[in-house]
Amino acid sequence: MLIVGELINTSRTEIKTAVLNRDAETIQQVAKAQEAAGATYLDVNCGNLVEQEIAAMGWLVDTIQEVSALPLSIDSPNPAALTEGLQRARHGQPMINSISNETARWQAVLPLVLEYRTKIIALCIEDSGMPKGLEDRLRIADSVINRLVQAGVPLEAIYIDPLVTPISTDQKTGKILLKVIRTIMEGYPGVHTICGLSNISYGLPARKVLNRLFMVQTMSAGMDSYILNPTDKGMLGSLKGSMALLGLDRHCRAYNNAYREGLYDHA
Amino acid sequence: MLIVGELINTSRTEIKTAVLNRDAETIQQVAKAQEAAGATYLDVNCGNLVEQEIAAMGWLVDTIQEVSALPLSIDSPNPAALTEGLQRARHGQPMINSISNETARWQAVLPLVLEYRTKIIALCIEDSGMPKGLEDRLRIADSVINRLVQAGVPLEAIYIDPLVTPISTDQKTGKILLKVIRTIMEGYPGVHTICGLSNISYGLPARKVLNRLFMVQTMSAGMDSYILNPTDKGMLGSLKGSMALLGLDRHCRAYNNAYREGLYDHA
Repeated sequence: MLIVGELINTSRTEIKTAVLNRDAETIQQVAKAQEAAGATYLDVNCGNLVEQEIAAMGWLVDTIQEVSALPLSIDSPNPAALTEGLQRARHGQPMINSISNETARWQAVLPLVLEYRTKIIALCIEDSGMPKGLEDRLRIADSVINRLVQAGVPLEAIYIDPLVTPISTDQKTGKILLKVIRTIMEGYPGVHTICGLSNISYGLPARKVLNRLFMVQTMSAGMDSYILNPTDKGMLGSLKGSMALLGLDRHCRAYNNAYREGLYDHA
Repeated sequence: MLIVGELINTSRTEIKTAVLNRDAETIQQVAKAQEAAGATYLDVNCGNLVEQEIAAMGWLVDTIQEVSALPLSIDSPNPAALTEGLQRARHGQPMINSISNETARWQAVLPLVLEYRTKIIALCIEDSGMPKGLEDRLRIADSVINRLVQAGVPLEAIYIDPLVTPISTDQKTGKILLKVIRTIMEGYPGVHTICGLSNISYGLPARKVLNRLFMVQTMSAGMDSYILNPTDKGMLGSLKGSMALLGLDRHCRAYNNAYREGLYDHA
């Protein structure tokens, strides 16, 4: 299970302030906390700093790597910011968050995937906009996978994001996403699926509960990678329990360890 | 979603004591609490009273029906106790818990299913014992479904229990059960699947967490009926959230109501 820690993102006030003040200690604490909680990648996003994004990306990557050996997910719509991050990334295989089937993004990001031999998150979006339902998502996923493979990207480096949209606007969305995940994971053995969870619960109360439950549902449909907050005990506890139940945790060792470390004390 | 409240069972000390003392108030409180929490059936089991079982079953059914209009799941391996309960059951369509492919049980229980036109829980067990894996369960399920339908039981009245066994003894069990559920629900449209959850976590810590997660996983595989404790807020909260995510709760109405009533206050 690939777990991308999502907390180093300047859309969060704490992180934005720390980046603007070049407060390395705060950033490093958040990096270490995510690693300690079980993250296997750390996402780095400072996209809302606009003109300061490139400098901030460079500083963030260097600062995080001083205290964590985790590989990074360089997260930006801006190819120059991606390049800045990728040039400095030095632990393991970096990840780019993200490419899509949109022409401009495709043309800007593909060369970076190839040059830096990255893992790549591929969103099911195309020029005409957001996918409408099951068929749209499957068609775009098929197109993106084939185009990436033809360009020389190994199937194992591709992480398809089926694009999670709220059940509050279309209640069929949850079931559709589960079907998309199952179809992709069965249809392209070796490929990965990934998502952020929080969009699913937009507009509804007790969002953390729904996000957590949707993680459990998607994992049982075959999803093997998540972008999430690993320091959220409810989320991580559900993730480890689900893995044990699905036979993805040999002898339930990680689950038993998590129990001994108190992850389920308040569950 | 059919929710069979499991609490009226003399294997629980509180219930055993209440039955032996003919303490109607305790039994009625437990019945009302389960109904208030969302049960749609109430299981009645006093199998461990042995020679007193038949009299106890009669008293329990009468006592529960004084305060609840829910239909009952009459739960016993003893045909005489089943008969006693079914003769007195007067709300809705009663359920029998359970038949199986074992010759003796089949011969004893089938006539009661037909005479009282009940819903019937059918366990994937046969004379040679517990099912071994995926193929065993699917073969037994197929046999039981075909035999029941041939005997005149409508597909819609059949609730297949795939027999939940612990992941601690065979870690493939969880995935196998999900595959069994999906295969049955797709292969016999109209049939139901049901289970009790607690066996899945036998031998592991924080069992309530695993039971709850396994409910979420099985529901996303298509399971539509559970035997559980509806007054367990974590379990019921997960159940209602899962239903909303799967599009089984129009406009998320039940989920929103549950939130307003405080079901997620500590989640």
